Amino acid sequence: MQDALIALTKYWTDRGCMIVQPFNTEVGAGTLNPATILRVLGPEPWRVAYVEPSVRPDDARYGENPNRLQTHTQFQVILKPDPGDPQEQYLASLAALGIDIDAHDIRFVEDNWANPATGSWGLGWEVWLDGLEITQFTYFQQAGGMSLDPVSVEVTYGVERIIMALQGVSHFKDIQYAPGITYGEAFGQAEYEMSRFYLDDADVETQKRLFEDYADEARRMLDARLPVPAHLHVLKCSHTFNVLDSRGAVSTTERAKAFARMRGLAREVSALWAERREELDHPLGLSELPPAAPAPTEFAEVTAPAPLLFEIGTEELPPGEVTRSSAAVRDAVATKLGGTRLAHGDVTVHATPRRIVVLVDEVAPREPDAERFVRGPKAAAAFDADGNPTKAAAGFARGQKIDPAALERVDIDGVAYVGVTKTDVGRGAVEVLSDLLGEVVAELRADKNMRWNDRKLSFTRPVRWLVALLGADVVPVAVSSLVAGRTTRVHRTAAEPVVDVPSAAGYLEFLAGHGITASMAARRTAIVAAAKELAASVGGTIDELGESALIDEITNLVEEPNAMLGGFSETYLELPQEILTTVMRKHQRYLPVRTADGALLPHFVAVANGDCDHDAVRAGNEAVLRARYEDASFFWRADLKVAPETMKAGLSRLAFEERLGSMADRAGRIAAVAGTLGAELSTADRSTLSRAAALAKFDLASQMVIELTSLAGVMAREYAARSGEPRAVAEALFDMERPRSSGDTPPATVPGAVLALADRFDMLVGLFAVGAAPTGSSDPFGLRRAAAGVISILRAHPTLSAITLPRGLEAAAEHVRAQGIEVPAKILGEVAEFMVRRYEQQLLDAGHDHRHVAAVLPLATAPAAAEATLREIEQRVGDREFGDLVAALQRVRRIVPADAPASYDEKLLTEPAEVALHEALTKTSAALTTTTLAAFVLAASELTAPINTFFDDILVMAEDPAVRAARLGLLATIRDLAAPVLDWQALGTSFTTE
Amino acid sequence: MQDALIALTKYWTDRGCMIVQPFNTEVGAGTLNPATILRVLGPEPWRVAYVEPSVRPDDARYGENPNRLQTHTQFQVILKPDPGDPQEQYLASLAALGIDIDAHDIRFVEDNWANPATGSWGLGWEVWLDGLEITQFTYFQQAGGMSLDPVSVEVTYGVERIIMALQGVSHFKDIQYAPGITYGEAFGQAEYEMSRFYLDDADVETQKRLFEDYADEARRMLDARLPVPAHLHVLKCSHTFNVLDSRGAVSTTERAKAFARMRGLAREVSALWAERREELDHPLGLSELPPAAPAPTEFAEVTAPAPLLFEIGTEELPPGEVTRSSAAVRDAVATKLGGTRLAHGDVTVHATPRRIVVLVDEVAPREPDAERFVRGPKAAAAFDADGNPTKAAAGFARGQKIDPAALERVDIDGVAYVGVTKTDVGRGAVEVLSDLLGEVVAELRADKNMRWNDRKLSFTRPVRWLVALLGADVVPVAVSSLVAGRTTRVHRTAAEPVVDVPSAAGYLEFLAGHGITASMAARRTAIVAAAKELAASVGGTIDELGESALIDEITNLVEEPNAMLGGFSETYLELPQEILTTVMRKHQRYLPVRTADGALLPHFVAVANGDCDHDAVRAGNEAVLRARYEDASFFWRADLKVAPETMKAGLSRLAFEERLGSMADRAGRIAAVAGTLGAELSTADRSTLSRAAALAKFDLASQMVIELTSLAGVMAREYAARSGEPRAVAEALFDMERPRSSGDTPPATVPGAVLALADRFDMLVGLFAVGAAPTGSSDPFGLRRAAAGVISILRAHPTLSAITLPRGLEAAAEHVRAQGIEVPAKILGEVAEFMVRRYEQQLLDAGHDHRHVAAVLPLATAPAAAEATLREIEQRVGDREFGDLVAALQRVRRIVPADAPASYDEKLLTEPAEVALHEALTKTSAALTTTTLAAFVLAASELTAPINTFFDDILVMAEDPAVRAARLGLLATIRDLAAPVLDWQALGTSFTTE
Repeated sequence: MQDALIALTKYWTDRGCMIVQPFNTEVGAGTLNPATILRVLGPEPWRVAYVEPSVRPDDARYGENPNRLQTHTQFQVILKPDPGDPQEQYLASLAALGIDIDAHDIRFVEDNWANPATGSWGLGWEVWLDGLEITQFTYFQQAGGMSLDPVSVEVTYGVERIIMALQGVSHFKDIQYAPGITYGEAFGQAEYEMSRFYLDDADVETQKRLFEDYADEARRMLDARLPVPAHLHVLKCSHTFNVLDSRGAVSTTERAKAFARMRGLAREVSALWAERREELDHPLGLSELPPAAPAPTEFAEVTAPAPLLFEIGTEELPPGEVTRSSAAVRDAVATKLGGTRLAHGDVTVHATPRRIVVLVDEVAPREPDAERFVRGPKAAAAFDADGNPTKAAAGFARGQKIDPAALERVDIDGVAYVGVTKTDVGRGAVEVLSDLLGEVVAELRADKNMRWNDRKLSFTRPVRWLVALLGADVVPVAVSSLVAGRTTRVHRTAAEPVVDVPSAAGYLEFLAGHGITASMAARRTAIVAAAKELAASVGGTIDELGESALIDEITNLVEEPNAMLGGFSETYLELPQEILTTVMRKHQRYLPVRTADGALLPHFVAVANGDCDHDAVRAGNEAVLRARYEDASFFWRADLKVAPETMKAGLSRLAFEERLGSMADRAGRIAAVAGTLGAELSTADRSTLSRAAALAKFDLASQMVIELTSLAGVMAREYAARSGEPRAVAEALFDMERPRSSGDTPPATVPGAVLALADRFDMLVGLFAVGAAPTGSSDPFGLRRAAAGVISILRAHPTLSAITLPRGLEAAAEHVRAQGIEVPAKILGEVAEFMVRRYEQQLLDAGHDHRHVAAVLPLATAPAAAEATLREIEQRVGDREFGDLVAALQRVRRIVPADAPASYDEKLLTEPAEVALHEALTKTSAALTTTTLAAFVLAASELTAPINTFFDDILVMAEDPAVRAARLGLLATIRDLAAPVLDWQALGTSFTTE
Repeated sequence: MQDALIALTKYWTDRGCMIVQPFNTEVGAGTLNPATILRVLGPEPWRVAYVEPSVRPDDARYGENPNRLQTHTQFQVILKPDPGDPQEQYLASLAALGIDIDAHDIRFVEDNWANPATGSWGLGWEVWLDGLEITQFTYFQQAGGMSLDPVSVEVTYGVERIIMALQGVSHFKDIQYAPGITYGEAFGQAEYEMSRFYLDDADVETQKRLFEDYADEARRMLDARLPVPAHLHVLKCSHTFNVLDSRGAVSTTERAKAFARMRGLAREVSALWAERREELDHPLGLSELPPAAPAPTEFAEVTAPAPLLFEIGTEELPPGEVTRSSAAVRDAVATKLGGTRLAHGDVTVHATPRRIVVLVDEVAPREPDAERFVRGPKAAAAFDADGNPTKAAAGFARGQKIDPAALERVDIDGVAYVGVTKTDVGRGAVEVLSDLLGEVVAELRADKNMRWNDRKLSFTRPVRWLVALLGADVVPVAVSSLVAGRTTRVHRTAAEPVVDVPSAAGYLEFLAGHGITASMAARRTAIVAAAKELAASVGGTIDELGESALIDEITNLVEEPNAMLGGFSETYLELPQEILTTVMRKHQRYLPVRTADGALLPHFVAVANGDCDHDAVRAGNEAVLRARYEDASFFWRADLKVAPETMKAGLSRLAFEERLGSMADRAGRIAAVAGTLGAELSTADRSTLSRAAALAKFDLASQMVIELTSLAGVMAREYAARSGEPRAVAEALFDMERPRSSGDTPPATVPGAVLALADRFDMLVGLFAVGAAPTGSSDPFGLRRAAAGVISILRAHPTLSAITLPRGLEAAAEHVRAQGIEVPAKILGEVAEFMVRRYEQQLLDAGHDHRHVAAVLPLATAPAAAEATLREIEQRVGDREFGDLVAALQRVRRIVPADAPASYDEKLLTEPAEVALHEALTKTSAALTTTTLAAFVLAASELTAPINTFFDDILVMAEDPAVRAARLGLLATIRDLAAPVLDWQALGTSFTTE
């Protein structure tokens, strides 16, 4: 392994990098070394390479896990500014390491890096070697909250992984570190002991004190305007935080506070460093970027219609952007062509990760000439009585450089004007396209854009070359520093990676000749066909529909799909399938192979890019999957040894929030709240709920969930079932974590729903009570999601209508109060309002009329009921009778002051319309049994006519105050009768018939 | 510079070293990286090389000093076990760095490394490249308090220094670090800012807290049996201590406490590591050392007398050991030869740093045979009456394997015995010498010995080869793993560094032929002659006598003296000469060149070893001196900008002792005490004293003294004089630091003496009062030296006789008490007693008769007076009259009980002898004016005869109690009259005439 470090060092120093030493305090990644995080700031050039032993307390595994180390070795390279060909330089470095880059499948897979703790981010890739992530490759865009100009390229090699792959060993301890000594022999003891320190033995109180002391020292150094020691102490702070975290001693609130503090310090450090370098007058000088290309001035003349080829060559686009950009470019080209007079045939666009290919059929050689009338003064004001041009006409003519005598008369909308007809001479196609295509590139944007060594362009990944051919002629496009030509790039490992394109015609075939399938559809078809064939060879199949998103992604990860079948040991099939498929899909983009009835087979289909040594690449991919499954198995086996109850005891070591206690406290509250809320369930459900509540959240203490938090609930179900719990209990534990996100399914079972509600009510009440309610930009605990979850669950479970928001909140409040925390009623009001807002949003997002939504919001404390009402409202859209009732009730409401009491002395009502309304009201009231809209409409429709008659015949504001009061009282009574049904006023004019 | 690191890395990995990364917490030296300090423990082999950025807060200079950096780069190599030729491997590494080792003067200069803080030490050298220390080369003997077996070789390159020399730049910032970027450009800002942190801005309270937290965490990790994290925390502790120290925030007591704590932890870490490796069954296996050579069994026969050559070939011996070992080897060989019957001529021994050459003239070919008589029983008991052998005789004969009839009769001391004469056959010279020379090597020992890759030998440096020739024949000597032969080693850079010696005869000439002068005397003569000649060439000379110790040292640093003249800029002559010559002598072993009247010239003589490129070596040596002088100039110039008063304000930032406050507090007390003690001085002296007291100790805050503490006082004088203080004040400030050591001169001036006394009285009283009195083995504050200083000063200044010890102590106590510290009288008594003990020691060490010393000790509170008395006593040695007086007084004292009152009723004295004595006493009393011995003798001689007569004639113990009391009273009066003069009893029999 040391040879590899020496080889990389030599490779990069030969390319002008200076070497620095690892930082002499613990850092979590090479990025945090000041040689990166500070040097990327400002305009100075900087090329550096170094080894960085990166300390990740969370990854401590006592040296037992084959792939995790508390200290792993990064080799870090910074190229500032971007040299223009960093990917090519990087690939050559792999060759220098002894990797046969022709034989292996090396890919750049989208991976955007962000470190919120330092306000830093960049776009780039993880580099895959046969499916193994060996390098993080990033165009650093922002650091310490400051935009970077110029942008730096950051290359971070994961050295142990690369070496394990190169040496074909499956445990880091077996790496041959130096001649005659393995990694385990050299560093095994340290790995074990430091794991002990980080996981078990570091003293929490001491580390907390250290955190404070470091943060304070950083603060003081900033005040002294010393960014270097300030940064040192931010790093010490950050490492200490990581130690505390791996000791399980950081609550969510503390985490948020600590991050805010570190982020604030880090940003100040960056700003101060930049300022200081400015004051020092940039000792290393200023970076130079490629100059802007000169604008083309000569354009070839074309004589016959010809096809256009325009290729935008990029570094690997994210799969989503391949699709999105191809559509956007097609629209842009078509729209822009439409804005010219150039005749042309179909516009088609194809895209791969490395190119967007625009083909336009039959482009005319030039635009036709065009005439246009330039309007002058009105004819009436153009000539005087003598027929001589007036001052106005003379001036216009002078402006148009014509003789006033040459002015023409034209009628425009019935008014006569003078003016002149001008001819716009059509431009040649090459000139038109030169401008137009340049604009397309300059205006190219994606969802998330970045910058590279170009002063003006911005896109999701760097644009590195342009091909623009009209027929066989180059269209001279110049945009920023790029100039289009006829040179394109094919596979990087091709014998000739850079080739000239003879002509636009037949370009797709030309690419195909170089192994590249430009058409997305063609690639997709090929992938599906190959995958199915491979799956069939082991008696399996691919779930084309179920995996369609994954297939789309794979399609856009390659230019030349090269599917191959891999396998894994059947023993891993003992793991829950969710784990296996999650790892395959999310981490590896492998297609799972299943039997016809959906059971997982120990096989997968991986799709490499282009030609490669199948055996080597298969072996590599299999090794990666094995390592990942080994990791999971490690947790799985370890967890299975622990009974759920025992595991749950571990919750007391997981902090939740300082004042709200540990996860154990929280699980206790959830169980209690669930007991209260579940009082009315069936006996069977109550029994399930009771057992599930006793185990609630136990899997958070499992190693699997600590590692893969998204498996919370999934693992609870698995572990509970395997430990002999009833199926219903296991399902309830699975359900209680649902919905996980806004689109996710709510719990299917009633006990699960009650637990899920209890969970969320507790979270909301507790955190609002301790003042951790979300703010505009920040919601670290995901309380919006929790609130939306409550609504979704209650909407999905109308049988739980007894669980209104206030009841749930009150139940939760009781147990939060028992923890010694004050929960004033006002807070519960706020939480309820917060949830109602989420409900409103859900309904609006679903496309409901905002007036209908507003009308049912007063019912939202029982979301299922509100939703039923909403549905009824919507069913009545266009119902004239209902519309009249609404109008009548709104009219009542408008007339009656809000404080008018809903009672009246009927004896004072003497006019017939008054009496009729009184009688109708009395009848309606008697008929009403529930406040559902249906019942109300049934009963209240009788009121519409009397109300309208009342208003037609009666002056409500009678002079006699007693009479007036009686009339208002009558209307107020109607108002109050209607109020619980919905907010009639909110319906607005949505039922007004015109 | 990065190329150099890469070249070293490659060199050592090619030699089987593994590479590790610098440690990821701040370390002061590569040694502290666990890859050294832990791995050298135990039996496992370990070969490692690594870069270590070594953090020394004390060396922070804001990047302004050309040679000091708060972080410098070490390249560290550990070879375990010692490969047998580490020096040769090291020299080849220099060649790999591009150093022409033939052209340059590369030397191994004694430097023994010890790190008491970790209980570690080793013997070795600093390696000089043309006078520049570029490497520390150590045979690591002990680490963490544990003896190392096997021994490791530690090579530590000072990378910046080597590169500065190679690139010929004079400021580290100008080093070309990488192509196109200098060291200053790359690291200048960090150097400045970290200097600010270490020197000015680190928060002391925070750092103190960190120290405690780290130490506690280390403690806990030890308790958890985790040496790796424990060591990590010891390192953090140690770095924090260094930060505190560079912030001037560590008092002497705190330092001692902190060191004790760190040492304790470090030792436990080492022990635990060794234990853990043992438990892990030594994962790296066990080291192999060369096996013992087989004992010789065949010895050549020699036929004629021949000269013997025996050469013990070593790695560079310390200069002192060259002399000492050559004498020891000569004695050993001569003594051992004397123990044989081998005839031989003169034994002479020559020595150089690399060899001890024994030459013995005319060694006989073999020992003569020798007869010896083995004594049996007495003849009387050997035969019975019948003349038959008794049982005893028969037994004896059987034991001697002879026939009883063959028993001889021999008279021994007049008694007849039977016995047998045996012949010891003489051994051949080769056999005799084989044994004898082996023993010489095995028994070789120096003052401080070490071990290397030999299982049995131990010497001041490794013994690497043996040559043993008798005439032209090899004497087969085998000792441990070494075997003697005829192969010797000459200069390492010679074309043939290893050569065969044809014969013992002419060996000195043989060596001379290879450029080596084996004779110390010859080398010395050559050096002096060459140096004088070179000095003369610039009109100067060498102070042969004054520099004689240095010349001796130089003589033993080379095998082939090669003197050359170097120069330095005259501008440095503005620096005080003490600085210049101290640097030349102590640091560089250069001979200063002076004019005839002693003024320093800007030249020096350096003595290289062997042939080299004079220009290159001269340039190198000059550059080194320039750098050192630049360093000194830097401090000098910086200090001169600060007025003494301003500088003195800095004392408040220097801690002295926790309870006794800062150095400013101490300086204040010294001034006050000096005021009290100087009350009786002349007006002029009082005025000088007053001003000097106001400035006392100000130079401790100067950069020069902080750097070179031995210049305290010297710099005070310089800086004071240059700031316009009167000469007398400057001298007093110089004087107050004297005497610096036991042999040093006391202050020459009276004000200086008073200040020096005040300084020491304060120190003694203060530290005794706070419980920091020295213990048997520990005297961190140097209180013994301070006490001896007081005595020396008072002895040297009899005019200050008014300053008795009690008075000085009381004056000091007053001001210590003012600081709020209790100073009981008992403590003052202890301090006085402590000083008297030092006085006694001084006098005894000076060779005074212990009885005379004891006699004057009662006077020691006024040391000058006591000394005067002592001198008088000594002048009277042999003076019979005085002897009689002494005897008479002792007789008086013996008779009189200690509690007998010194008064009597003269009327009760009636006997003539009584009366005569009474009268003589009365006369003597009247004549006595002072208690000096001279005066007393003059007056009291009259008493001798009456006392003797009194004892002859009078029975003191008369029966009449009144008479008895009167007689005792008379004698007691004499006793008390004599008592203040000296302790007569203590004189013992030293004046007894026989």
